[in-house]
Amino acid sequence: MPDRSELHQENLRKIFYPSSIAVVGATKTKGTVPYDILENILKADIDAAVYPVSPREKHIAGVRAYKYVLDIDDQVDLAIIVFPSAVAHMALEQCGQKGIKSVIIISAGFKEIGEKGLEREKQILEIARKYDMSFIGPNCLGVINTDPAIRLNASFARQMPEEGSIGFLSQSGALCTAVLDYARAKHIGFSKFISFGNKADISEVDLMYYLMRDEKTKVILMYLEEVTDGRALMKAAKDIVSQSGKPVLILKSGRTMEGASAAASHTGSLAGSDEICDAAFEQAGIIRCDNIEEMFNNAIAFAYQPPPETNKVAIITNAGGPGVLTTDAAIREGLQLARFSEETTRIFKRYLPSTANIKNPVDVIGDARADRYDAALTGSMKDPSVAGVFVILTPQSMTNIEEIAEEVVKVARESVKPLYTSFMGEADVAGGVDILLRNKIPHYILPESMCKSFASVYRFHHHIMNLNAGPVIMNEYDRTLASGIISGHLSNQKTFLAEDEAGEILKIYGLPVLPGGLAASQTQAGEIAEKIGYPVVLKVMSDDLTHKSDIGGVRLDLKSSEDVREAYNSLKMAIKGKIPESKIRGIWVTPMISGDVEEIIIGIKRDPSFGPVIMFGLGGIFVEILKDISLKVAPLSEQDAEDMIRRIKGFPILSGVRGRVPRDIESIKNCLFRIAQLAVEHPEIKELDINPLMVRPNGQGSVIADAKIMF
Amino acid sequence: MPDRSELHQENLRKIFYPSSIAVVGATKTKGTVPYDILENILKADIDAAVYPVSPREKHIAGVRAYKYVLDIDDQVDLAIIVFPSAVAHMALEQCGQKGIKSVIIISAGFKEIGEKGLEREKQILEIARKYDMSFIGPNCLGVINTDPAIRLNASFARQMPEEGSIGFLSQSGALCTAVLDYARAKHIGFSKFISFGNKADISEVDLMYYLMRDEKTKVILMYLEEVTDGRALMKAAKDIVSQSGKPVLILKSGRTMEGASAAASHTGSLAGSDEICDAAFEQAGIIRCDNIEEMFNNAIAFAYQPPPETNKVAIITNAGGPGVLTTDAAIREGLQLARFSEETTRIFKRYLPSTANIKNPVDVIGDARADRYDAALTGSMKDPSVAGVFVILTPQSMTNIEEIAEEVVKVARESVKPLYTSFMGEADVAGGVDILLRNKIPHYILPESMCKSFASVYRFHHHIMNLNAGPVIMNEYDRTLASGIISGHLSNQKTFLAEDEAGEILKIYGLPVLPGGLAASQTQAGEIAEKIGYPVVLKVMSDDLTHKSDIGGVRLDLKSSEDVREAYNSLKMAIKGKIPESKIRGIWVTPMISGDVEEIIIGIKRDPSFGPVIMFGLGGIFVEILKDISLKVAPLSEQDAEDMIRRIKGFPILSGVRGRVPRDIESIKNCLFRIAQLAVEHPEIKELDINPLMVRPNGQGSVIADAKIMF
Repeated sequence: MPDRSELHQENLRKIFYPSSIAVVGATKTKGTVPYDILENILKADIDAAVYPVSPREKHIAGVRAYKYVLDIDDQVDLAIIVFPSAVAHMALEQCGQKGIKSVIIISAGFKEIGEKGLEREKQILEIARKYDMSFIGPNCLGVINTDPAIRLNASFARQMPEEGSIGFLSQSGALCTAVLDYARAKHIGFSKFISFGNKADISEVDLMYYLMRDEKTKVILMYLEEVTDGRALMKAAKDIVSQSGKPVLILKSGRTMEGASAAASHTGSLAGSDEICDAAFEQAGIIRCDNIEEMFNNAIAFAYQPPPETNKVAIITNAGGPGVLTTDAAIREGLQLARFSEETTRIFKRYLPSTANIKNPVDVIGDARADRYDAALTGSMKDPSVAGVFVILTPQSMTNIEEIAEEVVKVARESVKPLYTSFMGEADVAGGVDILLRNKIPHYILPESMCKSFASVYRFHHHIMNLNAGPVIMNEYDRTLASGIISGHLSNQKTFLAEDEAGEILKIYGLPVLPGGLAASQTQAGEIAEKIGYPVVLKVMSDDLTHKSDIGGVRLDLKSSEDVREAYNSLKMAIKGKIPESKIRGIWVTPMISGDVEEIIIGIKRDPSFGPVIMFGLGGIFVEILKDISLKVAPLSEQDAEDMIRRIKGFPILSGVRGRVPRDIESIKNCLFRIAQLAVEHPEIKELDINPLMVRPNGQGSVIADAKIMF
Repeated sequence: MPDRSELHQENLRKIFYPSSIAVVGATKTKGTVPYDILENILKADIDAAVYPVSPREKHIAGVRAYKYVLDIDDQVDLAIIVFPSAVAHMALEQCGQKGIKSVIIISAGFKEIGEKGLEREKQILEIARKYDMSFIGPNCLGVINTDPAIRLNASFARQMPEEGSIGFLSQSGALCTAVLDYARAKHIGFSKFISFGNKADISEVDLMYYLMRDEKTKVILMYLEEVTDGRALMKAAKDIVSQSGKPVLILKSGRTMEGASAAASHTGSLAGSDEICDAAFEQAGIIRCDNIEEMFNNAIAFAYQPPPETNKVAIITNAGGPGVLTTDAAIREGLQLARFSEETTRIFKRYLPSTANIKNPVDVIGDARADRYDAALTGSMKDPSVAGVFVILTPQSMTNIEEIAEEVVKVARESVKPLYTSFMGEADVAGGVDILLRNKIPHYILPESMCKSFASVYRFHHHIMNLNAGPVIMNEYDRTLASGIISGHLSNQKTFLAEDEAGEILKIYGLPVLPGGLAASQTQAGEIAEKIGYPVVLKVMSDDLTHKSDIGGVRLDLKSSEDVREAYNSLKMAIKGKIPESKIRGIWVTPMISGDVEEIIIGIKRDPSFGPVIMFGLGGIFVEILKDISLKVAPLSEQDAEDMIRRIKGFPILSGVRGRVPRDIESIKNCLFRIAQLAVEHPEIKELDINPLMVRPNGQGSVIADAKIMF
């Protein structure tokens, strides 16, 4: 059996560039999906042969129809199935017999309607596998390819979008209609536009890879309700960024519990934690957007203009107030105002009126016309300290809006630096905005959105694109040994490992566990303590998690064998009756850690979409009260580990501010890498808690003072 | 001399409702401000007599012109001065002589251009005071009154806006042009539209009070770059909310240092701290908006629809994806999804197709037409658990957008519950959106903005409107005594009071200072300690702030007279040479506080706009590392104090979670009230730091363990 991902890539080519298309289930009834799709295909002036397939009709929309796919006396590259779901499998079977490999299933009535639909979905997938076919859908709007080489509108969208360099993927068909309408008004063009519906066969990940290789696509956008395979999605995003430099922007809904449950009832899927999704997206270099507008604000910035060399911008405005608002917004987005060179200042003095403000933000004053904008624009663009220019316009009585727009377009064409605009208002500025958008100059109603989008492009090119370092892999340990131990516990039906047993596994992975021994008697405890050296700690080791914290099963800071014996007895007395005898494995004797340490917490969790997730936080109030933790999906790169440590609000505690001792950050990273590797290599471990890891001053390492593992 | 604020209210009436108007400095040159204003006034079909005043012309725009204001043989209610700034004072003087009380000065060239302009501004203000005149401006766009009783467009804006219930005030004239353009496209109407420019005479506060009483105004909006008198602004906002129930929305720029400096170079003003401004606005019930769009999104929600009874909404959509996005947004804004009653469910089952999702969010499915929206809408509106309805629409092929819009308008008219809409897209939905906006149904391109605006109205009616309790005032102390002590220090040129002297003042205000005595000798120290009781602390008291922390001038936990004597000597040795003998006032002997305490910090700061500000935070890492503080402007109401304590992230430390002891919150509040009152009554105190206040378990009070005052 061939690898279906590879097969999909091959078959996707013919979904987007077919020489001949069968519309299977076409009808003559206008205003229905089967008719609309056929009409859309024909109306788009497609460069391919189109064959309607209909059990009843001889011809539809002037084109000869065939009763069965098998009747078509030509090779068919792409089949679009629009039959009701109850008979879609029969149509697909015939497509298979006909040798068609590429299919779009528009029909609804599958997984999204429950058990019965899920059965149908399995059935069509089986057929596809049998014939090495690939299909998009079911339950989707279809696909659009604006490439003039074909001009395919295989969808029931109202309108064919303009040609452009944005590739758009959507799990929701209805959202596509809103997006197309929004984009049309703003002259936003698409390379490929794909509604993938239930993604029963071809997944969003397959489509992302297709768009990575698609030469017409420069930016990849996606609306997603359900992440099926989070790790595959992350890998695809990373591959796309590192191999093609194309940004991936995703609008993922279901952020809240209520939203996720609405999504579940709508797509029939289950969502993982949104916090983990946030972390995973960031780790993979995905730009997560909060709404459609933000997604397209970013998309046009990426698609229309070159990236900025630095974060230093010049602001040109005909009004002081909006200049202030834009400055505020720029600074809040992490941008800086460029300082103009003497040369630029000289130019401004010469060409701008004396009342103009020639410092950044440059105020060309309310009565400015196109010539004055031109002087300010050309001057700023030439200044070596300026990496990009923001043009603000308010529609005052003297303002010749369209001419200024034309001027902006001219300057932008002649420059390699990015130029963004905000013509504030709506009705009066509409003509100018239209000129800007038609000429692919990013325009934003709000200066705030303009700054945000610029910052997003800047971050992508100066941060995200450098993220592609691989995970740190440790090799100096005996993985088989660890597997053996874990298998042993599993075959004993253990679900919980306390410090002693967890430590055994952690030790194999090179983690800094403390020495220790399990004592079954007073004498044995004393002997172990002598061997370890004082002071020591005694802890009850039980197979039962629930009793751990509340029974007082710990004795600290024991300084002599006398102390140890006494503590052993008192401990035994204390737990008597609190833990069933059968659950106690013994008393763990281990060194007492003291001195200058800071406590941190490291954990493993499992997410249904993204798999092993590593959690990091400072101990005490930071985790308990402030929920100050950072998350990353395992394995971790150097940058990931660095990020997750620096990300927490309490980081200054570790870095050593205000006379505090800087901690051994390298030793924390080392632990993070090893724990991440353990998490990846042993999926049997459902959860792990290291609480605390005691971190010593810089250069002196860390030690694990307690740990537990849950299967 | 009459109170000018009262005078302004009287004169403002004639600025907005004049029977006769002189345009002083009118010209015949089209495309200039003086001509445009005259033309705008005439073109708006004004119900008043208009007299152009021009040194050169006999008539302008067909209307007879006068050489001087004094030549007009009629009483003139309002003068609009458009002469250049250099001669504006002469025109104003003549207006005064003519007996005109209400003036708008459009001319630029005053404070905003520097020293010379500031002189001119002082000059015109003097003239206004001499004649009991009031003027708006200078350096402004003018004012607009859409009231059909007058229809006054005394501005050089391109267009007269529609009539409506939003009163808009702006410090920036240019921003007004953008706002008018934006509003026109969205059919947003205004009651009064006022560009107040340099606010040399009539201030934004005067205008706010005018709008409070203006019957045509339901919502007050303002763009502000500089808060001149923060306390007056706060009082006005509070008065407006409590006396008229009108919401006040402000877009205040200069959030960042760079933005504030751009504003300063533009308006010639200085900005205070943005954090304090944020806190002050909230305290006064002002809704601070981040950008123009957010301001109008909120404004139409307030202006067009009744407030919701609860935060429970119903979502009606023809597409699952947008339903999920809206659910996410609603929950994140603190709203809840209503649970439909059995009755409603029955109606939905009857009138909606079986494929529809009849739970909230209600999905009427992609092929829904107006009748199905009607059924879902009417059903939800009738449900007692639904306080408001969100209608989402995506433009699918069957969707009859305009009909649905008409249906929405009809249902909204018949209901007392608010209805908000989001027709997603742009071009195809434009016709429907236009119907909604013309009929004053709030519409938002993004469901996210819709939810945010609804939440804003909800909060205003259920939280902000209840804020109007007055400050807590303490009376049982001797204010004169405190004043005397402070005067004494000031006449001694003291700039810093250490614990002992600061404590003396705090004690008068009833704050929990510790007993103590200042010792000049070993023996004296011992005697004081005996009187206080052990353990005690010794601290060097110096007139010099800078040495305090780094000289080790403190000895803790002294348990006997022996200890005290020894500590006294070692302290003297330790500081020898570190502090000049002249700066040392003695050694302070005071009780050592121990036991179960949590340390907090309370401080006074002064803001140039808002005056005395109270700072509150938890000690240690919370303030040092996390900058976890809350701010309020003094004096404080019960709610203010409660808010500022609960606001900090570390609040759970005080409230007692996870087995922690709940602290004496009442004693903290008591301290806050007293410190706020001290701050208000003694403006000589520039700063005060209580660090720490030791807070005991609930019911056991707090004590001040250290304090200092700076003059």
